[in-house]
Amino acid sequence: MSDALTYIRDGAAIYERSFGIIRAEANLARFSPEEEKVAVRMIHACGMVELADDIDFSPTFAAAAKAALRRGAPILCDANMVAHGVTRARLPANNPVVCTLVEQNVAALAAELGNTRSAAAMELWRNRLEGAVVAIGNAPTALFRLLEMLDEGVARPAAVIGMPVGFVGAAESKAALAADGRVPYAIVKGRKGGSAMAAAAVNALASEKE
Amino acid sequence: MSDALTYIRDGAAIYERSFGIIRAEANLARFSPEEEKVAVRMIHACGMVELADDIDFSPTFAAAAKAALRRGAPILCDANMVAHGVTRARLPANNPVVCTLVEQNVAALAAELGNTRSAAAMELWRNRLEGAVVAIGNAPTALFRLLEMLDEGVARPAAVIGMPVGFVGAAESKAALAADGRVPYAIVKGRKGGSAMAAAAVNALASEKE
Repeated sequence: MSDALTYIRDGAAIYERSFGIIRAEANLARFSPEEEKVAVRMIHACGMVELADDIDFSPTFAAAAKAALRRGAPILCDANMVAHGVTRARLPANNPVVCTLVEQNVAALAAELGNTRSAAAMELWRNRLEGAVVAIGNAPTALFRLLEMLDEGVARPAAVIGMPVGFVGAAESKAALAADGRVPYAIVKGRKGGSAMAAAAVNALASEKE
Repeated sequence: MSDALTYIRDGAAIYERSFGIIRAEANLARFSPEEEKVAVRMIHACGMVELADDIDFSPTFAAAAKAALRRGAPILCDANMVAHGVTRARLPANNPVVCTLVEQNVAALAAELGNTRSAAAMELWRNRLEGAVVAIGNAPTALFRLLEMLDEGVARPAAVIGMPVGFVGAAESKAALAADGRVPYAIVKGRKGGSAMAAAAVNALASEKE
């Protein structure tokens, strides 16, 4: 550990250098300036510049999500890790950050509905969905359930960050969101995703500051 | 969304199928049975079977970490996302899950020490480090600082999950931990890592149940 003292200890300098490396190495040319900032922060969260190739934004996503956040829209998260990854100091309107997964009746509701707790937790979003920013970073079943709820006629969120991760349903649920077309979306195609990426997207949209 | 109803809604079945896909696709042959369970759960957290090639365990890591957790060792996390990714129901001894990053004096301490908040937060670990399980899933500076504190003579943790992510210091801090040799470790080599992987490692070690 003799060369330990050489590491960079200034948080702002670490961010600046990290973002510089990402912009030097990642293929970001197809993104708009607003989208590029979101992609850079998502790449920062996972350490993989190649993630850029898997990120897909619908044309109105970045503008819709940013406007919603400025209006004070709640951020509805499928997992506590997403909610805890949102940097409160970056939010433009002290936006509520909501995760209903751990509310008391969710386990019973899941049993009643025959679905996962993540999907059942979204029943508690119904009266908050209109104009909200949805951030799904964990459960494919949450994203599938959101699409079913849109079929059932719930009020539409302003934008959906659809980034569940994993091997069963993740790729399929994100493809279904992109094919659906009813709400502006950001996805990571395939199996990759996760709470850190979803929170990073929120954090990028929340403030112009990098 | 016409084929939405076909998705799997049973959480246990989703886990089982996911782990089956990981074991079919990932190259896990070089791991011991105990290590393999940790690797599988880390891969599950990020959706990437190729992660297996980047995971490195020191020989005594899995046994040391599991024994510490059974003894009731605290889990010291560098980030709230790590702490919130630990599944409390899996812990064998109602282990304390500690993240000191948001304690009130940390920002002032960081300014005083000329280091990041993540590194400063670890000053508050000093009297909890002995025999603890450390889970670093975010900040390279936290891992560098831990190595410095070992140089300063702090009591040794039982095991260190060293999985900071990113472009500045992540690869270097993990290589330094592996080279150091004073504490049993698990790392992800290179830029990859993150709070989900670190929490997944804890969750795998905490219970025999998959």
